[in-house]
Amino acid sequence: MRKLRMGMVGGGIGSFIGDVHRKAAAIDGMIELVCGAFSSSAEKSKESGKALFLPEERCYADFEEMILAEKQLSDGERMDFIAITTPNYLHFAPAKLALQNGFHVVCDKPMTLNVEEAKELVTLLEQTGLLFALTHNYTGHPMVRQAKAMVAHGDIGKIRKIQVQYLQGWMAAPVEKIEGPKDFWRIDPAKSGLGGALGDIGTHAENLTEFITGLKITELAADLGRFGEGRVLDDDGNVLLRMENGAKGTMSFSQIAAGEENNLAIRVYGEKGSLEWHQENPNELITRWLNEPKKIFTPNGNGLYPEAALISRIPSGHPEGYLEAFATVYHGFANHLMAILAGKIPHKPVYPTVYDGLRGLQFISAAVQSDSNNAAWTKL
Amino acid sequence: MRKLRMGMVGGGIGSFIGDVHRKAAAIDGMIELVCGAFSSSAEKSKESGKALFLPEERCYADFEEMILAEKQLSDGERMDFIAITTPNYLHFAPAKLALQNGFHVVCDKPMTLNVEEAKELVTLLEQTGLLFALTHNYTGHPMVRQAKAMVAHGDIGKIRKIQVQYLQGWMAAPVEKIEGPKDFWRIDPAKSGLGGALGDIGTHAENLTEFITGLKITELAADLGRFGEGRVLDDDGNVLLRMENGAKGTMSFSQIAAGEENNLAIRVYGEKGSLEWHQENPNELITRWLNEPKKIFTPNGNGLYPEAALISRIPSGHPEGYLEAFATVYHGFANHLMAILAGKIPHKPVYPTVYDGLRGLQFISAAVQSDSNNAAWTKL
Amino acid sequence: MRKLRMGMVGGGIGSFIGDVHRKAAAIDGMIELVCGAFSSSAEKSKESGKALFLPEERCYADFEEMILAEKQLSDGERMDFIAITTPNYLHFAPAKLALQNGFHVVCDKPMTLNVEEAKELVTLLEQTGLLFALTHNYTGHPMVRQAKAMVAHGDIGKIRKIQVQYLQGWMAAPVEKIEGPKDFWRIDPAKSGLGGALGDIGTHAENLTEFITGLKITELAADLGRFGEGRVLDDDGNVLLRMENGAKGTMSFSQIAAGEENNLAIRVYGEKGSLEWHQENPNELITRWLNEPKKIFTPNGNGLYPEAALISRIPSGHPEGYLEAFATVYHGFANHLMAILAGKIPHKPVYPTVYDGLRGLQFISAAVQSDSNNAAWTKL
Amino acid sequence: MRKLRMGMVGGGIGSFIGDVHRKAAAIDGMIELVCGAFSSSAEKSKESGKALFLPEERCYADFEEMILAEKQLSDGERMDFIAITTPNYLHFAPAKLALQNGFHVVCDKPMTLNVEEAKELVTLLEQTGLLFALTHNYTGHPMVRQAKAMVAHGDIGKIRKIQVQYLQGWMAAPVEKIEGPKDFWRIDPAKSGLGGALGDIGTHAENLTEFITGLKITELAADLGRFGEGRVLDDDGNVLLRMENGAKGTMSFSQIAAGEENNLAIRVYGEKGSLEWHQENPNELITRWLNEPKKIFTPNGNGLYPEAALISRIPSGHPEGYLEAFATVYHGFANHLMAILAGKIPHKPVYPTVYDGLRGLQFISAAVQSDSNNAAWTKL
Repeated sequence: MRKLRMGMVGGGIGSFIGDVHRKAAAIDGMIELVCGAFSSSAEKSKESGKALFLPEERCYADFEEMILAEKQLSDGERMDFIAITTPNYLHFAPAKLALQNGFHVVCDKPMTLNVEEAKELVTLLEQTGLLFALTHNYTGHPMVRQAKAMVAHGDIGKIRKIQVQYLQGWMAAPVEKIEGPKDFWRIDPAKSGLGGALGDIGTHAENLTEFITGLKITELAADLGRFGEGRVLDDDGNVLLRMENGAKGTMSFSQIAAGEENNLAIRVYGEKGSLEWHQENPNELITRWLNEPKKIFTPNGNGLYPEAALISRIPSGHPEGYLEAFATVYHGFANHLMAILAGKIPHKPVYPTVYDGLRGLQFISAAVQSDSNNAAWTKL
Repeated sequence: MRKLRMGMVGGGIGSFIGDVHRKAAAIDGMIELVCGAFSSSAEKSKESGKALFLPEERCYADFEEMILAEKQLSDGERMDFIAITTPNYLHFAPAKLALQNGFHVVCDKPMTLNVEEAKELVTLLEQTGLLFALTHNYTGHPMVRQAKAMVAHGDIGKIRKIQVQYLQGWMAAPVEKIEGPKDFWRIDPAKSGLGGALGDIGTHAENLTEFITGLKITELAADLGRFGEGRVLDDDGNVLLRMENGAKGTMSFSQIAAGEENNLAIRVYGEKGSLEWHQENPNELITRWLNEPKKIFTPNGNGLYPEAALISRIPSGHPEGYLEAFATVYHGFANHLMAILAGKIPHKPVYPTVYDGLRGLQFISAAVQSDSNNAAWTKL
Repeated sequence: MRKLRMGMVGGGIGSFIGDVHRKAAAIDGMIELVCGAFSSSAEKSKESGKALFLPEERCYADFEEMILAEKQLSDGERMDFIAITTPNYLHFAPAKLALQNGFHVVCDKPMTLNVEEAKELVTLLEQTGLLFALTHNYTGHPMVRQAKAMVAHGDIGKIRKIQVQYLQGWMAAPVEKIEGPKDFWRIDPAKSGLGGALGDIGTHAENLTEFITGLKITELAADLGRFGEGRVLDDDGNVLLRMENGAKGTMSFSQIAAGEENNLAIRVYGEKGSLEWHQENPNELITRWLNEPKKIFTPNGNGLYPEAALISRIPSGHPEGYLEAFATVYHGFANHLMAILAGKIPHKPVYPTVYDGLRGLQFISAAVQSDSNNAAWTKL
Repeated sequence: MRKLRMGMVGGGIGSFIGDVHRKAAAIDGMIELVCGAFSSSAEKSKESGKALFLPEERCYADFEEMILAEKQLSDGERMDFIAITTPNYLHFAPAKLALQNGFHVVCDKPMTLNVEEAKELVTLLEQTGLLFALTHNYTGHPMVRQAKAMVAHGDIGKIRKIQVQYLQGWMAAPVEKIEGPKDFWRIDPAKSGLGGALGDIGTHAENLTEFITGLKITELAADLGRFGEGRVLDDDGNVLLRMENGAKGTMSFSQIAAGEENNLAIRVYGEKGSLEWHQENPNELITRWLNEPKKIFTPNGNGLYPEAALISRIPSGHPEGYLEAFATVYHGFANHLMAILAGKIPHKPVYPTVYDGLRGLQFISAAVQSDSNNAAWTKL
């Protein structure tokens, strides 16, 4: 066996999320970065590649050049997959071209600009049989896996109530006016899509909810806010949820929640008990019970299901964080791909896929539609 | 000056809330219990009175008897006010009779069964000039007062977003079937009113929101749940809020949130900062800021406004709890009444009053109406 | 039965600890304040009494006058016990005189100025058969009682290790120079005794340790600090502990721990599990186990021993605090005294007594001796 | 420039700490693993190398073979440094041989078995001018760097008091009897050195204390425990500390603190304020002040010194953990080495070095000596 070879789209030096993808791919020693189209210009791309210790000839001007050039390389050299770390509007095209040329894909979320593009990627996946990982990184926390396993094993009984939130404060001030609009592709509908905070962090809340509960959101009532002066896209949202099993809930997300950093949290209430998890303190799963005291689970601690224990890298009491969870998505993807390359029967993905991506776009679309109808109930 | 004299309606030995009222009234040494109509029978009332060290002749069979008999007593002996600690459906009649006979009133919440009764009490108050305290006890926590003061002083800027919740789990199991329905007046619309969890704890969430923010809820969209089999009244609720200044928010309350004890919490986000308070850990006020680290305020700790410092009874680091906050409502009421008895110009009440009671009933009414219209927006 | 009648020594209006004693005695409705020698002058004492709604004739100039005058009153009027809330050097004399004249005693800690006085009180108690409660108030927290019960039931196995601390910061600045030395009897050996922080808060740490573990400290090595310029008494201490069963531990106390409020905390490690409790968040008992997840107990919550459940006044999730714990000492004392007055066989005290007081003085004495020998091991 | 080339001593597949070193070295993309002597046999070493995607010829039978063979390789191929991840007794020899042959060293702690070996390595370092990083990984947390910076800038004033602890529970049960002694080199003085828990985790507590405060421990009084039946080395310790500036403190460490995972925590009290940090929740630095509310700092959050901000990899609110802190030691070392290779004037190390290693051995030695003298004060 050998390490898997990754090519990057976007993620030039200085990019937050590109750096995260690189570190996450590197931690477990299964993946090496071999090429990239890191920036909007060939020159900048080469600069970034140099800083990343890549040979100049594998730093490409754009993703088309990269995909076509790499396709010509020998089996022993050619990249295995691309990692797409560009703004939202630049996800679909490279993903599509990669799939059409036989490359697997790791892609940031939201997957595309709209539901139609998302469906096209689903179709392509099903046609090609290639792999597609969507970096809903929060699914990679051991305590999120424990939560999911506890629900699946019926520990808390039938779910009745959900509270989920993702609160940030970095857009509470008019940052786009202070720092200049050019850096703020997130507030531009052409680059970000229909949703602002909705697409950027609302989709994480939606994905986490469905991941842990194993339940689909069937309808929602969304009251979006646009608090920053002149903003066209939402920077805040308050949503009522109804789940396929009759459970109800609230979702709250915001980028104007002054002072919040990344306060993603979820509470799930069943008939027998309940679960609580906070992204900013991810190594605790708080559980409450009808007749027992509160119990707190920790990664590699006592009483875990194998699903959680398997993805804890270090002994209990040594915190894992954002990068490790992100790396777990890459790890699941790499394991899957290695198994296929080794000719083994491919297992079911344990990482978010193109279907999660489609689901995210449907969520964005429903929320925007609901909001434009004064928060009327809207089906997903 | 002398201690104020209190007569109780309800609150026989074994009653949770009656005992709370007694302890809350006793802590600050300004009030003495002198009489009561503690139970539904004269005999039981006398038993309770005996256990409370009261003379038999001042343990009455019912509130009518008590009010009329006490009226005949001399100035030096007669009770000054009644404390109503009965189930919801037994608030209005004793309150009305007391006011009509010149007694001040302390009353548990929700104030009455419906908006009409609430309005009648408002009118009576305005006609008589008597005092009326509603025991929205959570307003009595020093850190809630600090939060209110910080908002009022503009520290966090214009409010944009609110999250409020009150989560209990004691009705997650079918308790009314296990313990017998007779004890569960809360699930009986005739005794509880239109709301179940809504009236019992939703009103606390509503009151706390308006108390801290100083803003009215102008409309809401409420999706109520009735998860316990056979329950007619709500045992769960998810609500979208819109405030008079354009702020938006979510409210979540439940009595089927398995494992929760009394998880009342609120977060308020302004343009410049935000506040977070948890009833189960009431001696911290967590504040977050655009450009400064998170700051945590404590009762009698550094940096408080006088409004908070005034009602902290003990040095910082010594926790005050539920009873102390409850006592602060009594303390405010007693101070007010003593000032009046001493012939001083009466100050503005610093405790919840009949107007808060009316507001609570309007909230219940709007939420029930919204829910019956599939969570349509409904004005308060 | 009737309420018990309390006379106070010290605790004039404005006194922190006097007010605490009054509120603690009042909460449960079993005790009424009937007289007092509140201050160092007759006039001030009467002023305080008036503010407390007492008749002028029962506001005495000093404790001798009070004890002798009350002794002359009829059975139906005379105080039952005195509550001593004066500075340390004024505990012994009133306690002794009260006992000699047939009055029970509630006394603040440390009980006396030295071991000799403490022993004299022990002897007097044993001779008179009267009751004596020492207000080591932290023993009154439900979660402290749960901790004690868990140890006693063997839940955590044989104890091996203890960490205890009591950290305050109010003397980090030279407060005695800023506010004037007259208010600082605590820094005056003649009024405070051999220990500074040692007596004031170290004794709480010592008492809590022995209360929860049921083990005696057999020897200690104490390194005391005098960080405030010009201070003769310790304002800080670091201590090694050895317990009668072979367990070892550390104790740390301080009044110069800048920024701390009342950070009293204890951790107890046994062969099978461990317990952790924090006074500033007293409604949680954190427990850890060899093979189970961390469990957190709460007052009136799931899984408690009767010893804890009995002294929780309100439903789970409603915090109790400092005053309630203090009141539990009074409640235990009052129950005991009422049983005796009712002619029932007296039970074993469930509140700290004169023996705890003696133990505290022995602890102070040993720590001071150890410190003067460069922290040599010293037996208690 | 190019990536740095690392050779490993120890750390075969299945080794906890070896895997940690690899992940820590990989995260930042500056280092590649090129060879290793991973295990005690050539065969096992090759197996591990294969799993790590290494060519067979660079998987060596032992560290001597590796060092001598690598020395023969060309400049473009030869490893730059070795990472020593073996048990304590196998640190000195490979470190010495590597240095003698011109290789830089990263080494796990404690650095050697005794002070003499430690001094020999210091001498070798000074003679060769090579680099040596000791993986006291906890120094790599952003909030530890912030704490150090705050002390250095005088924010909390002159330090007066320190509390430090490292509590684990994994040896509370007789694990060496259950799992067999062969796996427990830590309880074997020949392999572990003079200290058990003392060397394994006590040195972390010592290093963290001196790192943050910038103060040397001048003397200590150590009371060590050997609670596990038959254990020769300490599994628990309670220590009094005196610092060079007159500050005092306590240190507590244990591997029999039942239920604890990796509870490393430190509190530092100065004249003006204090700092508190917990390894299990490493992304908070709690600070307390004489006249201001408690403030909590977070990585990349508001109000940080550059020293902390520089080593935060991701935006605030996204937790970093154990591996990231470990990686920061590698990152500091790699930056230093790259600067030297690039011919730049070498900066001062920002990572723990051979001098920290010597300090650790002196600490172990003093603590063992103090303990054998009934916890007598012993100079470091």
